[in-house]
Amino acid sequence: MAGSGADVAELKEGVLEKVGTTRTPQPVLAVAARPDVDRAALARDGLVLVALAVADPGNLGTLVRSAEAAGAAAILLGPGSVDAYNPKVVRASAGAIFGIPVVDAESEGWTAVEALDALGELGRQRLGATAGRGTPHTEVDFGRRTAVVLGNEAHGIDAAVESRLDGHVQIVMAGPAESLNVAMAATILCFESARQRG
Amino acid sequence: MAGSGADVAELKEGVLEKVGTTRTPQPVLAVAARPDVDRAALARDGLVLVALAVADPGNLGTLVRSAEAAGAAAILLGPGSVDAYNPKVVRASAGAIFGIPVVDAESEGWTAVEALDALGELGRQRLGATAGRGTPHTEVDFGRRTAVVLGNEAHGIDAAVESRLDGHVQIVMAGPAESLNVAMAATILCFESARQRG
Repeated sequence: MAGSGADVAELKEGVLEKVGTTRTPQPVLAVAARPDVDRAALARDGLVLVALAVADPGNLGTLVRSAEAAGAAAILLGPGSVDAYNPKVVRASAGAIFGIPVVDAESEGWTAVEALDALGELGRQRLGATAGRGTPHTEVDFGRRTAVVLGNEAHGIDAAVESRLDGHVQIVMAGPAESLNVAMAATILCFESARQRG
Repeated sequence: MAGSGADVAELKEGVLEKVGTTRTPQPVLAVAARPDVDRAALARDGLVLVALAVADPGNLGTLVRSAEAAGAAAILLGPGSVDAYNPKVVRASAGAIFGIPVVDAESEGWTAVEALDALGELGRQRLGATAGRGTPHTEVDFGRRTAVVLGNEAHGIDAAVESRLDGHVQIVMAGPAESLNVAMAATILCFESARQRG
């Protein structure tokens, strides 16, 4: 951390366990300002992932980590999702929450439908990620401005949002498994987009 | 389950909570025989994932789930990995543990090095998955018989195994993140192999 410009303090034994949120914390802890992000980030170059109502913090954190690693433009967090700054999300993101803009629909005053409309106005094709339905992910043209919409783990994408979609994308699977979880699906889609975009 | 040929029993309230290993179990539970798998599975068509010393059951279960969904040939579990039938692995695999052969090196009497030798004798190129080093994953020829070697989450691949590798593969990342976790890396590699193999 020397050279990063951060103030470094050494803690007495037992302090870390008291201020952290895990039972066996990592040996270092940083205090960071929450990034100041707004809708402008949705116009950035690259894929936007829309996490409509992702409820599990581990899933959201992993999704953020993948999106950041793959160089996606931004994540749009829909109403009903777990908070992006929930400690479990921050931890699962392995710091990536500070590397990619996460736009919160509620902070922008948007319903899910209004958020989808905003993405459409930015010229993005809005593709619902669905199991067993839609264009195979390797055949989607990610060279176009694109937003992939990921639904809730249990309930998928609701009808109102569905009406705003321009199409669907599916991850074609070889095995008999019903589906991948939302974080795995996001990982595959982000890296396929990165592959196509070189 | 009707039609599956399974015997179905209805349990009295509270029984599931006692026999299951989670606090809030799913409403159904199945008893299944452990699949009978041996080294012959490593000759199957498709990618072999070598989980050398994957310690976290959630990571191993997710890796199994991805490999099965992507139609990989088999998983080879190295000495020092968590047991494939650990309840947390089975749960994280979402049933995929019954859909793809998991070969246990220890059951075959193999050290990690002997396991790598066996894969070489089957004509598989053995590629270590490493961060920041090796052929970009989209440029690896997965049309060739291939085994991807995934190391321990903290310590990577040890020197003895390293000496048996034919090369390295890396997932090229856009962001400043240090690395993906082993399950995410496995997901990306399995689906890139599936994409190339059509």
